[in-house]
Amino acid sequence: MGTSSGRRVGRPRAAQRPDSGLDPRAELLVAAAELFTTRGYAATTTRAVAERAGMRQASMYHYVSGKEELLAELLESTVTPSLDRARELLADDAAPAEERLRALCRTDVELLCAGPYNLGALYLLPEVRTERFAGFRAVRSELKDAYRQLIAATAVGGGLAKGELELRTDLVFGLIEGVILIRRSGPERPVGEFARATADAALRITGA
Amino acid sequence: MGTSSGRRVGRPRAAQRPDSGLDPRAELLVAAAELFTTRGYAATTTRAVAERAGMRQASMYHYVSGKEELLAELLESTVTPSLDRARELLADDAAPAEERLRALCRTDVELLCAGPYNLGALYLLPEVRTERFAGFRAVRSELKDAYRQLIAATAVGGGLAKGELELRTDLVFGLIEGVILIRRSGPERPVGEFARATADAALRITGA
Repeated sequence: MGTSSGRRVGRPRAAQRPDSGLDPRAELLVAAAELFTTRGYAATTTRAVAERAGMRQASMYHYVSGKEELLAELLESTVTPSLDRARELLADDAAPAEERLRALCRTDVELLCAGPYNLGALYLLPEVRTERFAGFRAVRSELKDAYRQLIAATAVGGGLAKGELELRTDLVFGLIEGVILIRRSGPERPVGEFARATADAALRITGA
Repeated sequence: MGTSSGRRVGRPRAAQRPDSGLDPRAELLVAAAELFTTRGYAATTTRAVAERAGMRQASMYHYVSGKEELLAELLESTVTPSLDRARELLADDAAPAEERLRALCRTDVELLCAGPYNLGALYLLPEVRTERFAGFRAVRSELKDAYRQLIAATAVGGGLAKGELELRTDLVFGLIEGVILIRRSGPERPVGEFARATADAALRITGA
């Protein structure tokens, strides 16, 4: 924790994180992303997150309410940008649905592969099933619904019965999120190329 | 934990688990499967596993060396039966590779959907990257290699460059393991039908 001097009382972090340029809240999110994915969520204390971010535990509570808030925000960060893109794509109904679906798949894979930590690995935590993370589950469910609408708008998708449309949506969404498992154990690849190949595979699954 | 009587010293479990018909080691595996997937691995103590299995912590060590052994065995149970099937299918080179690949996908999806607990969710634990779980990672890697060989033996796969074969193998394997994520949040479906649909999707990804 370092020693504190009179000058630094109340702002103990400044001297310890001179390089990142991040604000304290962002610093806490980066620290939590690292610790939750490398040590595990349950095994990480709020104190460890604060220390990793170069601040005292008491200071941390000025910025976040605790570990759950950090996890919720990290989870949502893996879905919200894709959902924003999905909404734009759903509105752009002049473009062929196949191309819009392909674009959504690429954006989503790029997001799931972004950053130094595989945040998608946190989806499977038992804690994520609790009420505290209902917001994340709702955003993820809305994203999946956007996939369903785009698949339904394709030439092949328009002819599918409801159950078959649900099934293909689940398979496409499972393929895209399966990137989390591939990223965990697969070889490193240029993300753009991998995202394109995954989008092609998704289109083949829909039958397009 | 109950009270112990003189009669039950040394075999405290008998009176508490009369119905399961499982041997003590299997009982511990069932208890660990439940607790690791519902409470989390780090948050589960060996004592909690022993209690759930109706035995004392000290008795548990007659059957397993601890939590890591239970996790390793649970992880391997999600892969070994599929690998056994893959070896049979690789040996059966009279049958078309497409049909053998389809059969492997179905077996694997059925296994990943089997049992009351989604054990595949444990793949993403940070602990699984440690040396203790090298055995599991080796079996999983061998299974993935079987997929690669079967894809390479298909009519389309035979013409693929090495990098493209690797990529399609990763995508097929990611789709199959992505079932873990679908199972977590998707609707309940008859497993046989879902396994067939996933196998069809896998074949489409290979280009067959």
